[in-house]
Amino acid sequence: MKTIDLALLGFGNVGKAFARLLTAKKQELQEHFGFNPRITAIATGSHGVCLDPSGVDDQYLLNLLDSEEPLELSVLDKMAFKGDMFDFIRQAPAQVLVETTPVNPRSGLPALDYLRAAAIRGLHLITANKGPVVYGFRELTELTKEHGRLFRFESTVMDGAPIFSLFRGPLAGAKLHGFYGILNSCTNLLLDRMRGGETLEQAVAYGVSIGITETDPSNDVDGWDAAIKVAVLSNVLMGQNLTPMDVKPTGIRGITPEMIASAESQGKRWKLVCQGGWQDGHFHVSVKPEMVGPNSPLYTVDGTSSYVNFALDVLPGLGILETDPSPNTTAFGLLADLIDIVKSETR
Amino acid sequence: MKTIDLALLGFGNVGKAFARLLTAKKQELQEHFGFNPRITAIATGSHGVCLDPSGVDDQYLLNLLDSEEPLELSVLDKMAFKGDMFDFIRQAPAQVLVETTPVNPRSGLPALDYLRAAAIRGLHLITANKGPVVYGFRELTELTKEHGRLFRFESTVMDGAPIFSLFRGPLAGAKLHGFYGILNSCTNLLLDRMRGGETLEQAVAYGVSIGITETDPSNDVDGWDAAIKVAVLSNVLMGQNLTPMDVKPTGIRGITPEMIASAESQGKRWKLVCQGGWQDGHFHVSVKPEMVGPNSPLYTVDGTSSYVNFALDVLPGLGILETDPSPNTTAFGLLADLIDIVKSETR
Repeated sequence: MKTIDLALLGFGNVGKAFARLLTAKKQELQEHFGFNPRITAIATGSHGVCLDPSGVDDQYLLNLLDSEEPLELSVLDKMAFKGDMFDFIRQAPAQVLVETTPVNPRSGLPALDYLRAAAIRGLHLITANKGPVVYGFRELTELTKEHGRLFRFESTVMDGAPIFSLFRGPLAGAKLHGFYGILNSCTNLLLDRMRGGETLEQAVAYGVSIGITETDPSNDVDGWDAAIKVAVLSNVLMGQNLTPMDVKPTGIRGITPEMIASAESQGKRWKLVCQGGWQDGHFHVSVKPEMVGPNSPLYTVDGTSSYVNFALDVLPGLGILETDPSPNTTAFGLLADLIDIVKSETR
Repeated sequence: MKTIDLALLGFGNVGKAFARLLTAKKQELQEHFGFNPRITAIATGSHGVCLDPSGVDDQYLLNLLDSEEPLELSVLDKMAFKGDMFDFIRQAPAQVLVETTPVNPRSGLPALDYLRAAAIRGLHLITANKGPVVYGFRELTELTKEHGRLFRFESTVMDGAPIFSLFRGPLAGAKLHGFYGILNSCTNLLLDRMRGGETLEQAVAYGVSIGITETDPSNDVDGWDAAIKVAVLSNVLMGQNLTPMDVKPTGIRGITPEMIASAESQGKRWKLVCQGGWQDGHFHVSVKPEMVGPNSPLYTVDGTSSYVNFALDVLPGLGILETDPSPNTTAFGLLADLIDIVKSETR
């Protein structure tokens, strides 16, 4: 049985959900994929760092995750660790870095630098962070390739729903002409609540209360999260080299209760629609609110669901819908990446 | 450059679309996947058989496909061929059999026998035919495995949309609890036309006129095509051993114009809904008409589109939508299978 040692850089909701999922699926991974995943290093933002070459004990980790106390990793500190994140990356006794630090939509930093350092050290890279993908997809792909390693990021768009793995595998023989969809589930929920009669402010307050919306919701509300996802899809799947700024998103701040009511009276719904693709020899991208009717697949995409429709040379319309996203679905994207990496090693 | 020789058993709309797609994608397949596909044998239902170890000339094949004349393969007959389909399977100078003969929902025969013979000869198997999958999935999987070959059938459910390849690859780490969806696009179109005011008979006449519906539409209208797809998904993805008869489908004959109007007045639409999955420790399947409202993803599945929603342990809801199906999208499913087979050989 092959052991795969993992270093977790970032240990928020997604990192924790991933640690839980690994523990829950350990036996299945051993039986079906022939490997034993082992977490040997964890770096949190402000609750310490641990490195343990023999692997953090599962039960200990679960107790820690279940505890009401703030997580203090220093208690796990079996190996003296002094230094910054770059020291962590250099010293972590691991083959794979799983990076889940917060996204920086303007530059991808510092995550991009972390991943670059890990690639140069010869680690496989898995990230749930759109920043380094949009700003470093080509560089990190090349860097990992030079070391015979892989760069994977399935959960950066639509969480664990298969998107990038679909194009590497089942759709490898197809050519992508364009895509459209609803890629930001937060604004989709806000628009749904507004359809139910709330103002944007009330809807945001609700979103904050259930942990979907950040207290400062501008990243979602002004379309930046959607724009970065449009740039990621364009860069990775269609050879573009865009930043979120190139997408020039229009968010949902301009949507008034009157506009919602007017759409409703026409049997339509407002959605924050993302698009990208070739038209007349030019590559176009956009993020903007649109009214969609009951003949569009976007019409029934409600709550925190998300959806993307691909137009391919061989399939005129292929849609992927994800409902009920959570840190657990994002964690599955990370696990799918890990399985892909392990398969690549045994080929 | 590796050459992969293909024998096409069945040369109707799907077989022809596959031959065209192979020709169109030849350069791409050589460049991206390192192989040269070559059609060395074709068996039609009633227009002859050809075997040509040096490969049927592309331009000749395209001219033949474009011609208004009925296809007579005897003109290609560079090698004397006398015999039945089993002789064809024995003698075809090929590594892969691509089977697209008509489906027999009651037994899978004779296609199942053809594929069995080809597996025993040591060929890879690709089929677009649900019959041998529902009646022979396990046997054909085992038989091909014994010879180090693969059995693939991506286009049997939702044409070229990735379903089985999704579960082999990107979703390999997930566990499927159940599925629901609209798997028969013919009845979906008929219900749409009835919503537009036509009777079932008028809708069928329209379906026949555009080549979507057979003159005897009972296979679709009575739910048998949907039932066989439910059985295929249940058997392949969820370890069941069902026949279409086990599904006991209810078709759409009982849907009256009054029922359509009544649904419309409630803001709902009739859909032929397929389901399968575990409930309380039992495996349940069904195919029956249901009214769905605008909060169901099925509501916007219109015309000849189809949709399936999977409930997985790690993804509560993952939906796949296919719009604008045609023999070309089915042909892509066959091509995706071929690419998968070639990749498996170079691993």
